[in-house]
Amino acid sequence: MSVAAPPTATAAAIDALAALLGPRLSRSPSDLALHGASETHFAPAPPDAVAYPHSTDEVARIMAICARHHVPVTGWGTGTSLEGHALAIHGGVTVDFSRMDRVLEVAAEDMLAVVQPGVTREALNTELRATGLFFPVDPGANASLGGMAATRASGTTAVRYGTMRDNVLALEVVLADGRVIRTGSRAPKSSAGYDLTALMVGSEGTLGLITELTLRLRGQPEAVSAAICAFPAMGPAVEAVIATIQSGIPMARIEFVDAATAAAFNAASGAGMADCPHLMVEFHGSPASVAEQSERFGEIVADLGGADFRWATRPEDRTALWKMRHNAFYSCKALYPDRPPIVTDVCVPISRLAQAVDETVAEIAASGIPGPIVGHVGDGNFHAMLMPRPDCAEDLATARRLASAMSERALRLGGTVTGEHGIGIGKRAYMAAEHGAGWDVMGALKVALDPAGLLNPGKLVAGD
Amino acid sequence: MSVAAPPTATAAAIDALAALLGPRLSRSPSDLALHGASETHFAPAPPDAVAYPHSTDEVARIMAICARHHVPVTGWGTGTSLEGHALAIHGGVTVDFSRMDRVLEVAAEDMLAVVQPGVTREALNTELRATGLFFPVDPGANASLGGMAATRASGTTAVRYGTMRDNVLALEVVLADGRVIRTGSRAPKSSAGYDLTALMVGSEGTLGLITELTLRLRGQPEAVSAAICAFPAMGPAVEAVIATIQSGIPMARIEFVDAATAAAFNAASGAGMADCPHLMVEFHGSPASVAEQSERFGEIVADLGGADFRWATRPEDRTALWKMRHNAFYSCKALYPDRPPIVTDVCVPISRLAQAVDETVAEIAASGIPGPIVGHVGDGNFHAMLMPRPDCAEDLATARRLASAMSERALRLGGTVTGEHGIGIGKRAYMAAEHGAGWDVMGALKVALDPAGLLNPGKLVAGD
Repeated sequence: MSVAAPPTATAAAIDALAALLGPRLSRSPSDLALHGASETHFAPAPPDAVAYPHSTDEVARIMAICARHHVPVTGWGTGTSLEGHALAIHGGVTVDFSRMDRVLEVAAEDMLAVVQPGVTREALNTELRATGLFFPVDPGANASLGGMAATRASGTTAVRYGTMRDNVLALEVVLADGRVIRTGSRAPKSSAGYDLTALMVGSEGTLGLITELTLRLRGQPEAVSAAICAFPAMGPAVEAVIATIQSGIPMARIEFVDAATAAAFNAASGAGMADCPHLMVEFHGSPASVAEQSERFGEIVADLGGADFRWATRPEDRTALWKMRHNAFYSCKALYPDRPPIVTDVCVPISRLAQAVDETVAEIAASGIPGPIVGHVGDGNFHAMLMPRPDCAEDLATARRLASAMSERALRLGGTVTGEHGIGIGKRAYMAAEHGAGWDVMGALKVALDPAGLLNPGKLVAGD
Repeated sequence: MSVAAPPTATAAAIDALAALLGPRLSRSPSDLALHGASETHFAPAPPDAVAYPHSTDEVARIMAICARHHVPVTGWGTGTSLEGHALAIHGGVTVDFSRMDRVLEVAAEDMLAVVQPGVTREALNTELRATGLFFPVDPGANASLGGMAATRASGTTAVRYGTMRDNVLALEVVLADGRVIRTGSRAPKSSAGYDLTALMVGSEGTLGLITELTLRLRGQPEAVSAAICAFPAMGPAVEAVIATIQSGIPMARIEFVDAATAAAFNAASGAGMADCPHLMVEFHGSPASVAEQSERFGEIVADLGGADFRWATRPEDRTALWKMRHNAFYSCKALYPDRPPIVTDVCVPISRLAQAVDETVAEIAASGIPGPIVGHVGDGNFHAMLMPRPDCAEDLATARRLASAMSERALRLGGTVTGEHGIGIGKRAYMAAEHGAGWDVMGALKVALDPAGLLNPGKLVAGD
C-alpha cells in the first residue's frame, strides 16, 4: 500500500518541517540511529528525520506537511515496544512525543486524568501519589502512555484492572490528512456511535497519531499484600493459576516465572530464589478482604504442592519484588548479553494454558536454545525470550521456528498470536491465519482512514 | 448514502429469499406491522418482508441476495430498543434472529459462552443456573444478546461488570457483501490488530449482522444483598451515589428512582414506597465483603439523611425488587397508557451528575409534562420518560425540547447524548455536536464496509 517517498519529496517535507520546528526537527546521525533501533532482534531502520512536537497543533501541521509530500510518518513513545512497531522501515519522519509530556488534568472526583502522549506510566503515577488514585496498566517497561494506547499494552495488573482497551476513556487523534478528532468523552460509558476510541487503541499508529489521552484511574487499595511462592514443577504452578482464577479470587497480579528466569533474578538481584518455577502474586482490597484472598490462595497453593511463601507487605519490599519482575527482560538478556533476543508472547484460554506452556517448554528445551518463560498467566498470556547465538543462522532459524510454533499453537487452542506485544513487523505473518477475512476488513478500514498509506507503513495491515 | 430499493428490485430479492427460506420468509401483514413498530414514539416503518434464518449460512445468503438486488437489510432481536434502531425506514428485508436462539456452548472453565444472536439474556442465565456462572449485562428488557451487542447495551449492573463493550469477547459477523468474519478469540485479551469486536459492538447493524457471540461470564457471587432506601430529596440521593462510587465500594447495582417512579411502582406492584426519591442497591461478594460493603454504604446514606432501609436478602425478595425496577418503563407507561413516551438517556461524568439531574428535573417540572426519571447513576447515566398528551402538537414540541436540552446539557458537562440506548433514529441529530469530525470518520468506516449503504440505512451515520 505504501513505499518510501522519493528523495526529493522527502527533502521538500524536511525543509518545510525544519521551517516549522527549527531545531526540533533533527537529522543528527545519533538521533536517526536511536529512532532506527528497537529493543529486540529487528534490523535497524532509521527515519530520514525526527520531529519533536510540543503540541497537537504542531503534530497536525507535521502530518499535513508529510501528507502533502507523501512522506511516511511513524510515531515514537519511549521505543520500548517489542515487535518493531516504531521502526521507520520505509523511512520518512518519526514523530517523537517525548516533549509532549504534561499531565494536563487530574479530575480526582471523576477518577480520570488527561495526559499528553509522552507522559510515561511511572511519571503519571508519581503525579497521582497524593491523590489516593493510580493508573493501573503496568507493562513492565516505563513506556509512554501514548505508546501503550497505540499498542494496546497490558501487563501484570490486567487480570484485575484490564488492559489499555479498558482504561482509555477518550482520545485526541491526528488523522492522516492532518484533521484532529476527539473520540469518547468523560462519561463512564456511551452508546453514541462507533467506538472510535477502541478502534484507535491497538492500531499501532497506522490510523492516526494519538495526541491526548483521557485515562480511567482507580482508587489506591487500602491494603496490599504480595508474595512469591515456589513450585516443584511447572504443571502444578500453572494449575494453581487456573484454580485461582476459576475460584474468582480477584487477583491484582498473578505472574509465572520459570526456573531459568528465577536464575536470572538471582544473578541480577541476588533474589535467592530456588531453582524451580515460581508464582508472584499481589492482592488488593480492604484489610479484611486481602486477608481472605491470601488465605484462599494459600490453600490452593498448598493443595498443589507449592511452598516457601515469601510475603512482601512493606511497600519497599513490594517495590523491590515488582522491580525485579519488571526487569525480567533485562535480567534474562544479561545472561547472554551478546544475543539479540527474539521475544514473543501469546495468549490462550485459561483452560488451555497448561497445555500451551507445557508444549512450549518442551520444544524450547529440546532445541538447546535458551528461552526463559514468564507470563501474566492470570490472563492466559505468557512470553518466551529466545536467545539464539549471534550470527548463527541455524540458531536463528530454530528460534524463529520455536516462535512460530508458539503462535500456531495459540491459534489451535483458540487463542491469539499476541496478548499484549502487538503485531508491528514481527507478527504480521500470522494475521491472515488469526483473522481470515477479518484481516481484509482491517485493510479496508486502513484505506478508509489513510488512503495514501502514510501512517506507520508496513505494520499491522497487509501491504508493503 | 442509501434510499429504498425500487419495487422491482425488492420483488426480485423477495422471490429469491422465498426460494431460499420457504415459509420462513414472511410477508404477512401482522408480521410486517410487528416489525415496523417500536417501543416508543417513532412512526411505524414496516419492512417489505421478514426473514427468519436458522443459521449463519442462511444469513450470509440473505445478505448476498439483498446486496445483489440493492435491497436494505435491518436486523431484529426482540424489538425492545428505544431509539427506533430496528425500524425499516427505507423498507427492504428485516432479518429476525428469533429462530437462531441456541446456546451453542458453555465453557465453564474459561468462563465464557457461545450463543446465537437470538438467545435472550434471561434464557442464557436460565441455562447457566447450574454452572455457578452468570452473564451480568442487564438492560432491564429481556433483550436478545445479538441486539444487546449491536446497541452496546448496559443497564443496572454495568457499574460493576461493565457494558456489552466489556463482555463480548468475540463475534461472528455477516458483512454487507455476504462475507462472514470472526472477530476476537477465546483468549481473555489480545493485541492482534484493530479491535473489530469493539467496532461491531454498538454499530447498530450498520456494519454487519451479528450471527454468533462469545460472551464473558462471571462467577455467581457467594453472597448477595439488596436494599431500597429513601431520601428526603433528590440532591442528597445523588450525593450519596457520588460518595459511594468515589469511596470505591464495588457496588453491583446502584439505581436512582424519583418520586414519580416510586408512585408508579406503588400503583403497579403495591410497593408501598414513600412519596420521595429512592436508591436501589445490590452488593456482591463473599459474606464478609458484602457485610463490609453494606455497612460502609449505610454510613454514607445515614450521613446524607437517607433512611428507611428495606433489605432483600432472600433470593425471591431480590427477584421481586429487580423485577419491579425492570418494569419501570411499563409501570410509568401504565400511568398514562394512551401516551406514546419519548424515552431518552444521557450519561455524564459522575462529578456533574447532581447538576445534570437537578437541572433536568427542574425543567421537566416547569414544563407540566409527566417525566419520571430513573438512572443507573453509578455510571452517571439517567433516563427521562416524557409523556406528552397524544396528538397534542404543543406537548410534543415541549417534550422534544426537554429531550434536546438533556442531550445538550450532557455534552456541555463533558458527557454523551446516550449512555446506553444508542443512536438509531432518535439521536442522530446530536452526532455532529458530540463527535465533530469523528462523525465523518464513522461515515468513512461505514462506506468502507458497506459502500452501497444497505445495512440498516438511515441510522447512526450521516445520510438519508
